[in-house]
Amino acid sequence: MDLVGEVRKGSVRALAKLITMVENEQPGAIEAMESIYPHTGNSYIIGITGPPGAGKSTLTDRITKGLRSQNHTVGIIAIDPTSPFTGGALLGDRVRMQGVSNDEDVFIRSMATRGSLGGLSRATSDTVKILDAYGKDFVIIETVGVGQDEVDIIRTADVSILVVMPGGGDDIQAIKAGIMEIGDIFVVNKADRDGADRLVTEIRMMLELSSTPREWTPPIIKTIATEDQGVDTLIEKISEHREFLNKSGMLGSRRKERIRCEITNIVEHEVFRYLDSLIAKNKNLFEQRLEDIINKKEDPYMLAKEAVEIIAKKISSKD
Amino acid sequence: MDLVGEVRKGSVRALAKLITMVENEQPGAIEAMESIYPHTGNSYIIGITGPPGAGKSTLTDRITKGLRSQNHTVGIIAIDPTSPFTGGALLGDRVRMQGVSNDEDVFIRSMATRGSLGGLSRATSDTVKILDAYGKDFVIIETVGVGQDEVDIIRTADVSILVVMPGGGDDIQAIKAGIMEIGDIFVVNKADRDGADRLVTEIRMMLELSSTPREWTPPIIKTIATEDQGVDTLIEKISEHREFLNKSGMLGSRRKERIRCEITNIVEHEVFRYLDSLIAKNKNLFEQRLEDIINKKEDPYMLAKEAVEIIAKKISSKD
Repeated sequence: MDLVGEVRKGSVRALAKLITMVENEQPGAIEAMESIYPHTGNSYIIGITGPPGAGKSTLTDRITKGLRSQNHTVGIIAIDPTSPFTGGALLGDRVRMQGVSNDEDVFIRSMATRGSLGGLSRATSDTVKILDAYGKDFVIIETVGVGQDEVDIIRTADVSILVVMPGGGDDIQAIKAGIMEIGDIFVVNKADRDGADRLVTEIRMMLELSSTPREWTPPIIKTIATEDQGVDTLIEKISEHREFLNKSGMLGSRRKERIRCEITNIVEHEVFRYLDSLIAKNKNLFEQRLEDIINKKEDPYMLAKEAVEIIAKKISSKD
Repeated sequence: MDLVGEVRKGSVRALAKLITMVENEQPGAIEAMESIYPHTGNSYIIGITGPPGAGKSTLTDRITKGLRSQNHTVGIIAIDPTSPFTGGALLGDRVRMQGVSNDEDVFIRSMATRGSLGGLSRATSDTVKILDAYGKDFVIIETVGVGQDEVDIIRTADVSILVVMPGGGDDIQAIKAGIMEIGDIFVVNKADRDGADRLVTEIRMMLELSSTPREWTPPIIKTIATEDQGVDTLIEKISEHREFLNKSGMLGSRRKERIRCEITNIVEHEVFRYLDSLIAKNKNLFEQRLEDIINKKEDPYMLAKEAVEIIAKKISSKD
């Protein structure tokens, strides 16, 4: 059965199956991704991040509705553990995304944040590619802006949207300076709450203080996603930013950067898996040395240094 | 200058300097950690996690005060990007930790969540060891319970405390089922808010539904950290849990598990750095293949597979 072929023909079942296969690193996953790869590069990738409770899911829902009304197809990847897709399935009575979840041309996939080092970034970028090859015009990645994996994911989107909300006691503090740097568009959601204007001012100040050279001045948009207010403006800004990327040639360089990250990520992930299997194969020896380390006969750094030296020596040796 | 010796003698300046050195992976950092290692194993490590806004910092402050009143010394590592130490330094007008930040026997260090894959876990576990060798009775790690790095960090503490709060619309949803599994003690903070009892019931239900076999039944404690309510009970529960770990022999197995994670982490991190340097050394070749990948002449998976095959072949070759 040619799963990739079926995905390309538009089978939703095959799409879901292939994503699961890739996410679980089942046999054949890499081969499938190799056949997917030539068909990628057509989707526009929107990253949405921000602290829990900022309303990212509702905003994702409303943006999707807006894009759908322009006849675009949309794929959604939800990595936010507080999202109704991932975390919310637990109690499962809230359906913030009800607006789009019955729409056939919207495919929603949630991703777990657990797994091996770098596994999440990889599973996400593979899923983006699959949705791309499937033919989605837009792929939206929704994630909480905490943790290196999440930041990496958002950084590699075509456009990164940072969502914050007034009040809650943490305001702008909830996003660190480093994360501010990756925002192309800022959204102050729940803008009917007290402090919305002050928050806009704070973000503007932080952007002005920022030392990152920018050719694009990130707009700051106020929205009330639950009432669909400001969402049209946001979608316009996404288009404007896209035009800017196209005209300036930055879309190409951004995507090149994304592929660069992906390759490094794939190589590293594979090397990790290989190291894990090596440790498993030499279990007794490893356990013995672990005992020595616990008993302070040696230290973990020595063992690590030794392992790296062996690996480095072998890699650099001419064979 | 023998930095490690000075740390062991109680110099706070040397302590701060050594942590910076290790965090930035400066030359000599590994050697310093090797001399630190034999002096570790005496601190008791408390991990505190939970969603932003749950009051982790205030709780950390109050627990520290409680431990100080019992004449224990305390080190605090704050990784939470919404913590006043890390994120809050930005606007910096809030001093939730004012109670302890002037106490000489409390050392506070904030850690950035940025950096290379696994870098945070490593910097944190190294800092724990340094504080341990310095002589702190307790080391508290405060972090947001999102992201694999953060979960790994908390999982390796002697006791893991999960802090949630009623209301905010996200309640228990903010912690995923997977993260629930790592909690030894649950805290419902801001317990004067509506819904505190319901939240306690929800957590109890989730724990009962959990399939993880447990010899220790995690207590669920209501606190109002800002008013110091429930903190004494929490500190008692930390002691009870410590006794349980000691009696059951689980403290040893937990610490063994921690060292196992650390070794894997150190090895992977070093291999990772080595790979980066390899790519940097072969920059032209790498850029050429990157171009080929962008132009769809080849795919990133092929390149990764090739790299891993070369590495694996070299590692497994006898020489």
